[in-house]
Amino acid sequence: MAEQPDGWESRGKQPTLFRRFNFERYGQTRDFVDALSALTEAQGVHPQNINFGSTYVNVTLDPNAAGLADADLAVRINALYHPAGV
Amino acid sequence: MAEQPDGWESRGKQPTLFRRFNFERYGQTRDFVDALSALTEAQGVHPQNINFGSTYVNVTLDPNAAGLADADLAVRINALYHPAGV
Repeated sequence: MAEQPDGWESRGKQPTLFRRFNFERYGQTRDFVDALSALTEAQGVHPQNINFGSTYVNVTLDPNAAGLADADLAVRINALYHPAGV
Repeated sequence: MAEQPDGWESRGKQPTLFRRFNFERYGQTRDFVDALSALTEAQGVHPQNINFGSTYVNVTLDPNAAGLADADLAVRINALYHPAGV
C-alpha cells in the first residue's frame, strides 16, 4: 500500500495474476511444483494459491505491496516452465 | 478395477476422499505440503488434487484400484497433520 496518499488505504478487490501450467506427466508437474517452491522460498514470498493435479499447476499471485499484481514474480515463475523438457 | 466381474468395467463417478487441513502460519502449511509430497512419492501415488494457500491445504484422493476411496492413504496423510506443533 506504499503508494496510497497519506491517511488513505486501498479498499476493494486488487488485481491478482493467474496462470495454468500444463504438463505431460506427473513427474514434470512435480518438478515444477518443487522448483516453484524453491523460488518463492528464496524470495521470501508465496503465491496466494497453488492448485495442482497430475498434469497441471494453477498459480494465483497476490497483489504486491503497491497493490499491483506481481508481474516480476510471474516472469520468474515462467522461467521455470519447460513443458517439453526432459 | 480388480474387483469388477469378468468383462465388466466400472462406469460413472467413483468416490473420492477430500479433507481440508488448516494451519496458523505459512511455514506450517509449507512443511505439511512437503511432508505430503515425500509420503506420496515414497508410496508411488499422488493425490488427484492438492490446493493450498497461506494457511490451508485441500487434498482430494482418487479412488484406488478397486474403485474405492483410498482410506489407507488418507490415514497416512492425517498422521502428518500436527497443526498445533512447532
